[in-house]
Amino acid sequence: MKESKVPTLKSIAEKLNISVTTVSKALKGYSDVSPVTRQKVLDIAEELNYTPNSIAVNFRTKQSKTIGIIIPEVVHHFFSSIINGVIEEAERQNYFVIILQSNENKEMEKKQVELLISKRVDGIIMSLSNQSNDEDYLKKIIDRNIPLVLIDKISKLIDCSKVIIDDKKAAFDAVNHLINIGCKKIAHIRGPLNPQNSIDRFLGYKTALDHHNIPFDSSLVYPCKRVCYEEGYDFTKQLMNDHPDVDGIFAITDLVAVGALTYLNDQQIKIPNQVAVIGFSNWFMSSVISPKLSTIDQPGFKMGAQAFLLLKEEMESMRNAGKRVCKTITLNTDLIIRESTSK
Amino acid sequence: MKESKVPTLKSIAEKLNISVTTVSKALKGYSDVSPVTRQKVLDIAEELNYTPNSIAVNFRTKQSKTIGIIIPEVVHHFFSSIINGVIEEAERQNYFVIILQSNENKEMEKKQVELLISKRVDGIIMSLSNQSNDEDYLKKIIDRNIPLVLIDKISKLIDCSKVIIDDKKAAFDAVNHLINIGCKKIAHIRGPLNPQNSIDRFLGYKTALDHHNIPFDSSLVYPCKRVCYEEGYDFTKQLMNDHPDVDGIFAITDLVAVGALTYLNDQQIKIPNQVAVIGFSNWFMSSVISPKLSTIDQPGFKMGAQAFLLLKEEMESMRNAGKRVCKTITLNTDLIIRESTSK
Repeated sequence: MKESKVPTLKSIAEKLNISVTTVSKALKGYSDVSPVTRQKVLDIAEELNYTPNSIAVNFRTKQSKTIGIIIPEVVHHFFSSIINGVIEEAERQNYFVIILQSNENKEMEKKQVELLISKRVDGIIMSLSNQSNDEDYLKKIIDRNIPLVLIDKISKLIDCSKVIIDDKKAAFDAVNHLINIGCKKIAHIRGPLNPQNSIDRFLGYKTALDHHNIPFDSSLVYPCKRVCYEEGYDFTKQLMNDHPDVDGIFAITDLVAVGALTYLNDQQIKIPNQVAVIGFSNWFMSSVISPKLSTIDQPGFKMGAQAFLLLKEEMESMRNAGKRVCKTITLNTDLIIRESTSK
Repeated sequence: MKESKVPTLKSIAEKLNISVTTVSKALKGYSDVSPVTRQKVLDIAEELNYTPNSIAVNFRTKQSKTIGIIIPEVVHHFFSSIINGVIEEAERQNYFVIILQSNENKEMEKKQVELLISKRVDGIIMSLSNQSNDEDYLKKIIDRNIPLVLIDKISKLIDCSKVIIDDKKAAFDAVNHLINIGCKKIAHIRGPLNPQNSIDRFLGYKTALDHHNIPFDSSLVYPCKRVCYEEGYDFTKQLMNDHPDVDGIFAITDLVAVGALTYLNDQQIKIPNQVAVIGFSNWFMSSVISPKLSTIDQPGFKMGAQAFLLLKEEMESMRNAGKRVCKTITLNTDLIIRESTSK
């Protein structure tokens, strides 16, 4: 192998004929090094393209200035907005972000937690896979005193800081809006049975029906497995066969709602007059498709930024006081009314 | 601060009353440790939840098993697909990915390169900001013998490995298709003047016109600054005022094309009969809006996976032979014909 060209403290010291200690002190701005010497060291460091070895530095301070984030899927608009928020805030505070995606797979998530622990990250932000609940590897993060913030897809059984929205209230708002515009028979294309946000949105749907004395009918609830466009399309087809008189659909997320819109458009079923549709999340695409989709705005970017700030608070609390903060921040959602529910 | 619970080699050694060296050798499977002792060490390590300190390990092997990727924007569907491809391949090979976003800002990009170098990553993948060209900080990566792969938004002036598509040919295919369906006066909503892919797509547009003996008219070319939905909308408005007889639009990317579709829909201008529209990139949304958008499929996920594999080849070549590979991989694009150009 070619000889390494990487300049070291030693090479700077040799060039100036001074000690390595003096070079090190000069670079750190210690006052017992004369300004003249300091300037010489800085000039040579610049000339040699010297970069401090942060692994060595971190090894001393025991901070890696790196955090890890594990999320189900990067390509989802909502999750990429979260990442965006985390990265922007982390960059501002000179932290690095290692991003890993679990692909909604518990085994993968476990492996990733272990990798992050072995990488000695300063803290971890996670949005759980649909399969995860009170898993041992999540408890291990707590046992090892590693700061942890759960975001959006959380487990109530893990005692740590969380950044969430009130999914139940947001779903209530969506379904309440459908009822207010005159819908009497509302279907819910829901998420899988395990994740907390899927449960809470379903409960919000039920509560809104209750609130208006509309009896709950379980045959109007269709559970997605992958929460994708195709399921939205196929369940709407099945729904229109099972219940031709349905007049409203509340979908677990915009992607599923867009699948529903496409099926209804293909069948020339009038939206919203025959069937009104509302989604959840407010993806960009929802504002440009036709008809434009009503939805719940979920502030992904802000959630990501908040999650980093909360993690930072955790990291400082662990370092200074040896204890967790364990705070839950609930961010507001907004009902966005567009063409798909404007009768 | 609370006493740290993190188990060390020393705590395992003390528990078994053997030397730290023996514990270390046992964990690494050295043959001069008896199988019985080895098993005892593994059992205690398991019991104590011991995880090897990878920072210390890396410090010895001089590999961090971490790579960095700098891209303009995470929320863009194309870039999040690239990230997805990089992460999936990196995970398969037990590498970590540090993701940074430049926000199309050269100063930010420079700072991020320096951070990655100081973090001693094993290699860097970059998609350049619109402002970047043959910048000194890019040359510094080369000078420091750090493996580098440029992806999609590259600079021809930097001598390193690259994963690209043939933007000129792909743009030629798009405009050639518009001409083949009968368009005679075709506008191009182009990207900024600096980035190579924006230049190449513009050249592909010009070449297709040449090929069909259609004279080039520079007043039909509108340059975006931010390459966003709003610019697509506003430039199409301006275009329809400047040239009411235009009958085709080739937009630099789907997001811009969707802005164009929205303006034309708002004005009840018939697509594609009065004006046909084609985009570039094949975002998911293009297949669900109305009319469905014709476009060029750009294989983001595959490009990301290829970029990681090429970076790995670079890293191995640098380690074993002390030299770069400097290979360019060009992936195929496909013309996707949908409603916006189906006369």
